Amino acid sequence: MKAITVRPNSIGAEVRDVVVKETLGRGQALIRTVMTGICGTDRGIVSGKISFAYPPEGYSFLILGHEGLGRVEEIGDGVATLKKGDYVVPVVRRGCGQCLNCKIGRQDFCETGKFVEAGIRGKHGFMREFFVDDEKYLVKVPEEVKDVAVLTEPLSNVVKATEELLFVQRRMIWNCEDSTFECRNAFIVGTGPIGTFFAMTLRTLGFQVYLLNKREPSETERYISEKIGAEFYDTKLGIDKLPDADLIVDTSGVPEAFLPLMKKMRHNSALILFGTMEGEKAEIMSDLVTEIVEKNILIIGSVNASKKDFQGALNYLSIWRYRYGDVLNRMITSKVEVEEAPEVLSKKIKGEIKTVIKWS
Amino acid sequence: MKAITVRPNSIGAEVRDVVVKETLGRGQALIRTVMTGICGTDRGIVSGKISFAYPPEGYSFLILGHEGLGRVEEIGDGVATLKKGDYVVPVVRRGCGQCLNCKIGRQDFCETGKFVEAGIRGKHGFMREFFVDDEKYLVKVPEEVKDVAVLTEPLSNVVKATEELLFVQRRMIWNCEDSTFECRNAFIVGTGPIGTFFAMTLRTLGFQVYLLNKREPSETERYISEKIGAEFYDTKLGIDKLPDADLIVDTSGVPEAFLPLMKKMRHNSALILFGTMEGEKAEIMSDLVTEIVEKNILIIGSVNASKKDFQGALNYLSIWRYRYGDVLNRMITSKVEVEEAPEVLSKKIKGEIKTVIKWS
Amino acid sequence: MKAITVRPNSIGAEVRDVVVKETLGRGQALIRTVMTGICGTDRGIVSGKISFAYPPEGYSFLILGHEGLGRVEEIGDGVATLKKGDYVVPVVRRGCGQCLNCKIGRQDFCETGKFVEAGIRGKHGFMREFFVDDEKYLVKVPEEVKDVAVLTEPLSNVVKATEELLFVQRRMIWNCEDSTFECRNAFIVGTGPIGTFFAMTLRTLGFQVYLLNKREPSETERYISEKIGAEFYDTKLGIDKLPDADLIVDTSGVPEAFLPLMKKMRHNSALILFGTMEGEKAEIMSDLVTEIVEKNILIIGSVNASKKDFQGALNYLSIWRYRYGDVLNRMITSKVEVEEAPEVLSKKIKGEIKTVIKWS
Amino acid sequence: MKAITVRPNSIGAEVRDVVVKETLGRGQALIRTVMTGICGTDRGIVSGKISFAYPPEGYSFLILGHEGLGRVEEIGDGVATLKKGDYVVPVVRRGCGQCLNCKIGRQDFCETGKFVEAGIRGKHGFMREFFVDDEKYLVKVPEEVKDVAVLTEPLSNVVKATEELLFVQRRMIWNCEDSTFECRNAFIVGTGPIGTFFAMTLRTLGFQVYLLNKREPSETERYISEKIGAEFYDTKLGIDKLPDADLIVDTSGVPEAFLPLMKKMRHNSALILFGTMEGEKAEIMSDLVTEIVEKNILIIGSVNASKKDFQGALNYLSIWRYRYGDVLNRMITSKVEVEEAPEVLSKKIKGEIKTVIKWS
Repeated sequence: MKAITVRPNSIGAEVRDVVVKETLGRGQALIRTVMTGICGTDRGIVSGKISFAYPPEGYSFLILGHEGLGRVEEIGDGVATLKKGDYVVPVVRRGCGQCLNCKIGRQDFCETGKFVEAGIRGKHGFMREFFVDDEKYLVKVPEEVKDVAVLTEPLSNVVKATEELLFVQRRMIWNCEDSTFECRNAFIVGTGPIGTFFAMTLRTLGFQVYLLNKREPSETERYISEKIGAEFYDTKLGIDKLPDADLIVDTSGVPEAFLPLMKKMRHNSALILFGTMEGEKAEIMSDLVTEIVEKNILIIGSVNASKKDFQGALNYLSIWRYRYGDVLNRMITSKVEVEEAPEVLSKKIKGEIKTVIKWS
Repeated sequence: MKAITVRPNSIGAEVRDVVVKETLGRGQALIRTVMTGICGTDRGIVSGKISFAYPPEGYSFLILGHEGLGRVEEIGDGVATLKKGDYVVPVVRRGCGQCLNCKIGRQDFCETGKFVEAGIRGKHGFMREFFVDDEKYLVKVPEEVKDVAVLTEPLSNVVKATEELLFVQRRMIWNCEDSTFECRNAFIVGTGPIGTFFAMTLRTLGFQVYLLNKREPSETERYISEKIGAEFYDTKLGIDKLPDADLIVDTSGVPEAFLPLMKKMRHNSALILFGTMEGEKAEIMSDLVTEIVEKNILIIGSVNASKKDFQGALNYLSIWRYRYGDVLNRMITSKVEVEEAPEVLSKKIKGEIKTVIKWS
Repeated sequence: MKAITVRPNSIGAEVRDVVVKETLGRGQALIRTVMTGICGTDRGIVSGKISFAYPPEGYSFLILGHEGLGRVEEIGDGVATLKKGDYVVPVVRRGCGQCLNCKIGRQDFCETGKFVEAGIRGKHGFMREFFVDDEKYLVKVPEEVKDVAVLTEPLSNVVKATEELLFVQRRMIWNCEDSTFECRNAFIVGTGPIGTFFAMTLRTLGFQVYLLNKREPSETERYISEKIGAEFYDTKLGIDKLPDADLIVDTSGVPEAFLPLMKKMRHNSALILFGTMEGEKAEIMSDLVTEIVEKNILIIGSVNASKKDFQGALNYLSIWRYRYGDVLNRMITSKVEVEEAPEVLSKKIKGEIKTVIKWS
Repeated sequence: MKAITVRPNSIGAEVRDVVVKETLGRGQALIRTVMTGICGTDRGIVSGKISFAYPPEGYSFLILGHEGLGRVEEIGDGVATLKKGDYVVPVVRRGCGQCLNCKIGRQDFCETGKFVEAGIRGKHGFMREFFVDDEKYLVKVPEEVKDVAVLTEPLSNVVKATEELLFVQRRMIWNCEDSTFECRNAFIVGTGPIGTFFAMTLRTLGFQVYLLNKREPSETERYISEKIGAEFYDTKLGIDKLPDADLIVDTSGVPEAFLPLMKKMRHNSALILFGTMEGEKAEIMSDLVTEIVEKNILIIGSVNASKKDFQGALNYLSIWRYRYGDVLNRMITSKVEVEEAPEVLSKKIKGEIKTVIKWS
């Protein structure tokens, strides 16, 4: 079958005809890929900048793709919750089987680091015509969001981070006087798909949201910000006009992008670190540490998501599908053919929020 | 203006022209009522069976109605989040101002019992053409659920109970091996609007749901059960065919309805008590207590909801609006004129799930 | 070696010379028993009233004893945290190895019920001269509490229940205005060792504590109550003079003992069910259910404890060792020889709080 | 009465005869000071390096001292829990009365910053012969720890930080396979009283503890480390020989001290920031941010403590009083007369862990 592959230590992706040894076993389903999203990690692998990607054992190549959407083509014995024709999104990370978090299905908190991740680490991804997967890693897609369900995987990571935030912030009273979060300001650093999803999730939970970038918004960004009731803020204008922050979410990975904002952080506020980036330097002062201490500030790094977060993501998509009009559809800025994928994987499309590859 | 009122110690409700001393103050809005739902508490008050209802100070009558939906007609100074034309749902309970839970906006956990509740205890309700309320008690309704938003208040109580359940069950590992709740069975005792909402909420969270009643389903119930993927179970057939339960939600208030089911409760399971009823007797054995102990079973009574739960309810309505087709609309089994209300308040309509009164 | 054994379906215990197939393996230690406590479960087994006890596979008898204290006699390879001469308390329950709670070391929340329990279900207990156990089930005893460490096991169950209580009560604000629990009243139903431990634990956490029994206190009970700052209350005088309760802990298992007290329960209060008893009947009214609902009352059954709770119990013993003078020593009302054990196991000693058997 | 005072913008402390307008009101007690501890904040104020200290309204001077221990001399009307002769420790911070955390007695999480702190910000401290305080801010000291109870206040801050840590780490499974924390390594950066208290608290909870300083231990430090079962580690030898860390606690406030250790942090680990320091610079790389993200690392700043934490601190002192022999007494390295205080406040005593001033 056709697949998009990369090879270790070589730059670029190619569309190839591959043979993958997979047979439909008990509790498994054969999935025909419908769409796959492209994200920064894919491009990092293709450009050779990301060094942690590697093929599954016994393969000289890795099939890319961790943002998948497919349709059940055939089910194996013992599959109870899926039937032919169902739309599904596959979970990306598969646990180490050893640590306690993996044992309870929370491989997003794997402690050993010995997990595999489809399309990234030691497991073929979803940029191929078909794949076989276990029922337990396939998340059923409700009818009303099929057309945007390729967004489920990136959103699932946002859902995980947000759920964790809400739990840890129960360390004190963080809600407003009316029990909601409407008095809380959140800054989102970075306005790509992840930043946009954080903005939408936090708006849905009641937060006042500021989408920060060091430029003016594109037309699409302006449209989305307005629709979801968030403010797009150009940090080139300085940050003095921003209010104080109860929450900062960094999706950039660039310390220089979020460190200056930390002086805006209020007592009991939180900083979610989500973005990753190599090679950037920054200077910090012990005064920042003092602020973190004196104000009981909390910082969490958050990565990945478990199946329950994929379900949560689908619920958010259902809310937004109609609440925010065509925002979700507009986030998918291009749909490209498989043959165009290698080029698109090598170079971001101008004005892109999310580019997806059509498979069937 | 027209209002539906009751008088202490007298049976029946009447449509009357009333004068209520309310002026539009700072931080307040004048609301034109659009719809009000009728629930068992309203009928309990009208029939004289509920003894805890009382008028506001200075009034000889109480305006009924705690399930409201209105439109902002005018806003007072200092109102920031509402504008003319917005649809809103008002919060029912107003805190005592003294206990710690009321001080932090969680009057649903009022400790003193000195709260008031619109349409029930010491505060006029929403069955009237207009009312003035504080911005902090008005929950803005998203466009896509305006037509069903009269269901927000009953649903908010379900949201509160469910959120609390998910928190307390973090006392151990309650999720399934894949991190979801798909391996968990929930029994809902009672198939009225509250039971139906619990079923929908728990399905949305992944639970397998059994809607229990001691009769066959009505056509509407059959339709709704199928749509939401729950099983309607007639307990007259005995309970042997039911699987074991991880969760039981009682919406009946009748001990004889949920006690026999408790022998189905698994280790670490929970029982939510939500229904209330006067005068029913039941016998329990110490063996039940032993089971609760040996199996680490948790039981919570849950009442009322705070503003955040109203927001949560609106989010669920948005999910279900399209996921479950016309289920929400079908739950509103009749819409009656104000003049018909006294009769409908005195006697349940056959096949009723939720009856609402149209105001404007 | 000498051991105290019971046989299925036969009443009474005997001191016998037994052979147990145990060899000192990797990660294990050979323990010389120092003392074992006697509790109601032991007597229930000996009298034949408890039907769930059974011998380990391959044995026709069960060695009794789950409240153990021993001294390390020899360690196997790979044991890192114990050395010869250390005092240790063994954990009672050993997990099923299948459910998620057992996988993370929380076998006190075993979901399958397929655990074994030393001296009770399918595993020999500690009423014998020696036993071999895994390092992971042996809890090291600090020097300062060696003489009372035989009390660790019963106390560990109280610690587990209390920790769980404090977690689940974070569902709302339960602390007092000064952040402590000093405004909270706790009723303890039953004044045996478990009731006494609950009283001491809750006093240490700041609660006002009432020890309830349907008789006047014995001299020892009077002494202990005074020392720990709790009030002993004779419920034969009626319960009107008791204040309202924020917490009730039942250690009796008798519904008639705690049900009448429930009318004293305040909003947001909790009832811990800890006692078990067969064959008692009681009548409840739906009005009680209504109270539970309207007041957001929480009820939890709690059983068993994990290793962390044994450590917590030892910390409490260290606190009380000097804070409460000779209270802990006075709780050990008799120390008997092994040969006297069968008689003592058949009949409670008058005035007994805790009877222990001396082994070495 | 005699008091130790400082004046804004002038370096040094003096023993003076002062007049403070305090009368014994309802719910208050007059306290005779027994001992006061000296900490870095006191010396920072005296040296003029700390700029945030200021006198109470109406005073030109500030009485120093926030680590107090006193004896009740007289009680006002309505005092229920204290009597003449009781030993008490006063709480330091008094809430703003406005924010939700202060309203529920958790002024350690004050959101407005408008609190006062005895001996530091806007409220006279305890370095004086007598003071009047509200019952709700006075924590009763159990008999067995009277001689070391002057350590309660610094320890209370450690207790708050640790309780918060244990709560937020419930975001995933952090316990070991046997339910304890014995497989978890904690690094403590800094070996002063706070570092030592963190070490003792974490040991008591089961952690393996490494006390880090960039020098060899003093004799007292060597003694204490051994007694509590922690390892003193000289970071001048490089950090390669340290194991990986599940927890780092920084008590230094110096980024260069804890940043290099962060590469040792395991998945799901936590960093508690407790120390504060002005003027130190450090460089960070975005790779550190990536590590925090990929490993789900959590960082919390923690400051201050509420009354419940003072009670918790007294419980820890009771445990350690006998478990760790004379460690607590050895931590009090000098007791000085009031007249010597100004000198000691200006210059740390060699080998000092905690210096206290004797008052009565």
